[in-house]
Amino acid sequence: MATEAADQTKPALRSYLAAAVDFASGRQTPRQFLERSLELFDYWEPQIGAFVATNLPAARTAADRSGERWRAGKPLSPIDGMPVGIKDIIETVDMPTEMGSPLFAGWSSAKDSASVRALRDAGAMILGKTVTTEFAASEPRGTRNPWNTAHTPGGSSSGSAAAVGAGIVSAALGTQVIGSTIRPASFCGCVGFKPSVNALNREGSHDYQSQSCTGVLGASLADTWQVAHEIVARVGGDAGTPGLQGPAALPPAQKPRRLAVLETAGWDSASVAAKQQLNEAIMRLRAAGVEIRTRQNDDKVAALENHLLNAAELSHRCNGWETRWFFRTMRDRDAAKLSRNVMERARKYEDLTLADHRADLKERARVRAVHAELAANCDACITLAAPSNAPEGLGSTGNPEFAVPASLLGVPALSLPLFEVNAMPLGLQVIGFFDRDADAFAIASWLMSSPMPR
Amino acid sequence: MATEAADQTKPALRSYLAAAVDFASGRQTPRQFLERSLELFDYWEPQIGAFVATNLPAARTAADRSGERWRAGKPLSPIDGMPVGIKDIIETVDMPTEMGSPLFAGWSSAKDSASVRALRDAGAMILGKTVTTEFAASEPRGTRNPWNTAHTPGGSSSGSAAAVGAGIVSAALGTQVIGSTIRPASFCGCVGFKPSVNALNREGSHDYQSQSCTGVLGASLADTWQVAHEIVARVGGDAGTPGLQGPAALPPAQKPRRLAVLETAGWDSASVAAKQQLNEAIMRLRAAGVEIRTRQNDDKVAALENHLLNAAELSHRCNGWETRWFFRTMRDRDAAKLSRNVMERARKYEDLTLADHRADLKERARVRAVHAELAANCDACITLAAPSNAPEGLGSTGNPEFAVPASLLGVPALSLPLFEVNAMPLGLQVIGFFDRDADAFAIASWLMSSPMPR
Repeated sequence: MATEAADQTKPALRSYLAAAVDFASGRQTPRQFLERSLELFDYWEPQIGAFVATNLPAARTAADRSGERWRAGKPLSPIDGMPVGIKDIIETVDMPTEMGSPLFAGWSSAKDSASVRALRDAGAMILGKTVTTEFAASEPRGTRNPWNTAHTPGGSSSGSAAAVGAGIVSAALGTQVIGSTIRPASFCGCVGFKPSVNALNREGSHDYQSQSCTGVLGASLADTWQVAHEIVARVGGDAGTPGLQGPAALPPAQKPRRLAVLETAGWDSASVAAKQQLNEAIMRLRAAGVEIRTRQNDDKVAALENHLLNAAELSHRCNGWETRWFFRTMRDRDAAKLSRNVMERARKYEDLTLADHRADLKERARVRAVHAELAANCDACITLAAPSNAPEGLGSTGNPEFAVPASLLGVPALSLPLFEVNAMPLGLQVIGFFDRDADAFAIASWLMSSPMPR
Repeated sequence: MATEAADQTKPALRSYLAAAVDFASGRQTPRQFLERSLELFDYWEPQIGAFVATNLPAARTAADRSGERWRAGKPLSPIDGMPVGIKDIIETVDMPTEMGSPLFAGWSSAKDSASVRALRDAGAMILGKTVTTEFAASEPRGTRNPWNTAHTPGGSSSGSAAAVGAGIVSAALGTQVIGSTIRPASFCGCVGFKPSVNALNREGSHDYQSQSCTGVLGASLADTWQVAHEIVARVGGDAGTPGLQGPAALPPAQKPRRLAVLETAGWDSASVAAKQQLNEAIMRLRAAGVEIRTRQNDDKVAALENHLLNAAELSHRCNGWETRWFFRTMRDRDAAKLSRNVMERARKYEDLTLADHRADLKERARVRAVHAELAANCDACITLAAPSNAPEGLGSTGNPEFAVPASLLGVPALSLPLFEVNAMPLGLQVIGFFDRDADAFAIASWLMSSPMPR
């Protein structure tokens, strides 16, 4: 078995749901699935550094118990026994939550987050905590991309994307307030899902900005949807909201009638090869009978593109106000333990007033209304998930620009591992409409089964 | 000075803002104010047990620095130097946050909550953490009422109310999801303010239910409003919301044209003496030219009364869904360290489904809409803040029923120390309309200066 793992030189996604069809008969078992996860962990982890903490000792026993439930026809959920990773800003009762910061080395919340508790109640196996950038902002913490370890895996959900990309886990929780789920998913070649804002309960996750979301990085659309569904079914969305809407299993593929292609502020930074892939995809969609709307042929698309030009700065201003009280206390605790990145970000928004922030929230609501109007003209938007493949070097997690619009808009976004640039993955991004996450998945399912350039 | 403190056998509220008018001239100083606080602490704390942790060593130095700023005409805010207490579910970087539970004995979040950081930036002095019931639910933790130490101070913000009532601090933060600010304020004879839902940033406070609020218990309306304002000015409301609306100082008194009197589900449990006080107040209001609406003469009042009959059960169901994941983990950690109260509450809502919860949220929204309609017919509602004075005994924090409606409705409520029953205080409750907290204060200011029965 060790030899087989050593042969695994190219990352491969491992869907738990695909394996689970054989669990009832016993042709395959959760224990076998786990053993392969542990082999891949042994092979990949020294190379990519995706985890900050693991909880392996109990895993084999838990997998055996899960196997018994499947054989008895009584799994706790379709993800019973699934090995998952948890971004290290999300709290776990059995492992520290260090948030990528030496200020929280060894710190424990003494509880599970809502999402983690839901996953445990669904039978999932929390294999470990995955590396996050410092406080889920921009300072990287050394994780490498399994497709090329000289390249970044993206951030801030760096370890979650790398672990899923390498096949160690079938899904991992991430978060996104700017580009922290869509970008690393794109770079590591897995599915990335940033839901509608508030759709998954964030309690016990240290991402309290108003446009932040718990996200799921998964080996397939089915694994990704299922993980999100099992969370919402048990702990709902953020308190007071209805939570993720949709069926108890992956929505069936639905061919879109009309798609809008967005360029957004990221377009100028996109590589020629990346643009070529998107353009070829558009041609194939047209050939398949999908009507394509762009800023050239649709006034509503043009209006949205104009409103999105300032999306990054407006997002940063909202986030800056919403987090600066936290960074003030961290600075007072020990400024030497904060990165320059984080210090500069915090300083930049020190002078914002409540009136400024209220104006920013109103402006964001205006942009959201412009996007909502577009629902009359198309079923979803598509664009790149990142400007190109993951850049070389570990000093930066790469450009998040393409992920910003859905973050600002508070709408669902998916990164689909459909493109390839420089022999590394690149995601096609599907951006849906608020609270219609299931529709975005249905379109994504159809796109995944369509002929696309690779 | 020690003798003077020992003479202080009757609790007396101490407004910091009233003292602060002399700070610029130096006729009085924040240090003098603090010294009196420390005397009262020494006198009262052994009797009432309001604090779980204090941070006294730095207080005198901080008071002297505050005094210098006042003399220089540059206080950080009108509450610069104000001694405050913080309910022990709200995080402080320099003191543990134990939540009234042995499961969190000595636990530290390693940060300040948003509200605490705002208070520090405004120059306030965090004198200590105040006793909360277990996880801000119903299990008392031994605090006694300064008006009669054989009686409960109410809960869950027990220590905050007792400390303000005894004059140790001029204001304290509490929280309310059912009756945790209005009830203890009523029992301890201070002002209690439960704002519109989301109006004060709750990040770093362990009350994540959708109808929960950070509340303020204060020695006067001015102190109360100012503390709330200084928080919102620096850290806003809950992320993504505009936060508490209103002026930078206590809104001027405003005589209401029309007030609705609510009985609510609490009426049957109110004492004869309490009802008499409210009825006498109503007569005086009528005599002063205020039109009184009741369920007998106003269909909208009648509609609201009907919708509020189920307010407690609906609130508990919403809260039960929103907190059960947390209690599951606590139960797994060590069930023996949970009270029977909390275990029973958690069990009661174990079977709620996501569909049930969504239906509950819709029902709550319907009741809120019925209340909002009433704004056409009156300027505010009034009722009792509690069924009577604080009951004898420390085994229960008393009946919260009168505080439930404003909690469910998500609207501002104030308890005003205007009544007296059995030689103990009882609050008149003012219930305002959503996002019009300042209007409720303006009416409360007028009521506080009107002739009321005592």
